[in-house]
Amino acid sequence: MTDAPKSHGRLSISASIKPRELMTDTPRIKGAWTARIITLFPEAFPGTLDLSLTGKARELGLWALETIDLRPFGIGRHKNVDDTPAGGGAGMVLRPDVVGAALAEAATGTPADRTRWPVIYLSPRGRRFDQSMARRWSQAEGMTLLCGRFEGVDERVLDHFGVEEVSLGDFVLTGGEIAAQALIDATVRLIPRVLGNQASTEEESFSDGLLEHPQYTKPAEWEGRAIPEILLSGHHGKIDAWRRAMAERLTKERRPDLWRAYCARRGMDPMDDQEL
Amino acid sequence: MTDAPKSHGRLSISASIKPRELMTDTPRIKGAWTARIITLFPEAFPGTLDLSLTGKARELGLWALETIDLRPFGIGRHKNVDDTPAGGGAGMVLRPDVVGAALAEAATGTPADRTRWPVIYLSPRGRRFDQSMARRWSQAEGMTLLCGRFEGVDERVLDHFGVEEVSLGDFVLTGGEIAAQALIDATVRLIPRVLGNQASTEEESFSDGLLEHPQYTKPAEWEGRAIPEILLSGHHGKIDAWRRAMAERLTKERRPDLWRAYCARRGMDPMDDQEL
Repeated sequence: MTDAPKSHGRLSISASIKPRELMTDTPRIKGAWTARIITLFPEAFPGTLDLSLTGKARELGLWALETIDLRPFGIGRHKNVDDTPAGGGAGMVLRPDVVGAALAEAATGTPADRTRWPVIYLSPRGRRFDQSMARRWSQAEGMTLLCGRFEGVDERVLDHFGVEEVSLGDFVLTGGEIAAQALIDATVRLIPRVLGNQASTEEESFSDGLLEHPQYTKPAEWEGRAIPEILLSGHHGKIDAWRRAMAERLTKERRPDLWRAYCARRGMDPMDDQEL
Repeated sequence: MTDAPKSHGRLSISASIKPRELMTDTPRIKGAWTARIITLFPEAFPGTLDLSLTGKARELGLWALETIDLRPFGIGRHKNVDDTPAGGGAGMVLRPDVVGAALAEAATGTPADRTRWPVIYLSPRGRRFDQSMARRWSQAEGMTLLCGRFEGVDERVLDHFGVEEVSLGDFVLTGGEIAAQALIDATVRLIPRVLGNQASTEEESFSDGLLEHPQYTKPAEWEGRAIPEILLSGHHGKIDAWRRAMAERLTKERRPDLWRAYCARRGMDPMDDQEL
């Protein structure tokens, strides 16, 4: 399956060998990048994702969102989804049989190849989410996101389904729902045609591993503070150089980790102030 | 102001010198930790924060949420909030006069001391949000969060108001609204009495700088996979040792940065496999 030519449906019309008609059949959903979310709180979606740019893009059928309520997969009359941790301890753990049934349902009609359809569990134990992950996911056909609650999920179901753990950062959230929205937002805006102004994304943070330079706009003076003169000079070369120097200084001050990586890529000495 | 005794309203009844009556006057809001959010999309709130634990806590008056719509502060008939970047470039920048007026409004009735009332701008240029930040903020009286859109905010207004830039991580979001929800969720759950089961938080991720050990629950066997025997042994000492070893191994594999910090704190050699 991994070697088969990838089809991204209408997201890759130019590269596809399918006749165009087949793909525009049901344009709002068919072939559009799809986020499939397993959650105990389906009412959390689309939430903020329905506003602004991501909301408009969903209306245009550029991506789709499907929620799978975990509750109906629960056990017994009370539809229990969790139980106490084996070996003792506080909190509750989501049962493997319950989560497994939901993951099986979520897999319906999706490619087994995880590069074409990642299956993600949002957990502080996971690899840290970053822009390169968003970029990779935006080139997939869609993804499944499992939102946890309680202490966690039974490890066996993560192993069995080849679920990838991804973390939003080193902090504890009540559940995975807000994290899922962040991941989807960052990913969806990289899907072709979602952003009207492509230049905007390209210039944005992390495009070259530096934090963004300071921005200024009208009025020219405000509360006794003026826009730096160079920005009003009209001299594009100097403006670019100033912006790069500011971005470098900011990165060096605030994010030594990014600064070291940037210097390594350019063969610069991270301790050398002459560069700035 | 920094040296004045801190009042956290009803969140610190025992430490306060105010008569109890004054504080229970309007129990739902008065004195409760408050998130004040400046946004072009007030309808994004409370969003997911109204579900589950954070939603119940808000209903109980343990915290409060106020949105300040940025739009009415806009300029002219069209209430413009942004303009083109000085020096050229793509995108739009939020104007300092517009954002400044909203920040002034948000400051009404809040302490000027930023440790008592942090003022945060959600931006990928900021310091990375983590659990220690959430812990510190949960001990404040509340906080103001400025949600950006477009390319950014005029630098002068950030300087003028002593705004702290905080980033959710190294990725680009359409706006600050989802990031604000993540920050508020992580912070609110650390406010006293919000979490029913305090033990649960303490055991959770990052309490000792390690990723959490794997969890298991019923059934004892699922899809041919058994719960590790030791967890069913009833031998608490061995279970704790196993869990710590697993947490250490996982941290070492997935998060070399956390692993090195953990080893440094305990005087361990991060390359030494014997410890595991």
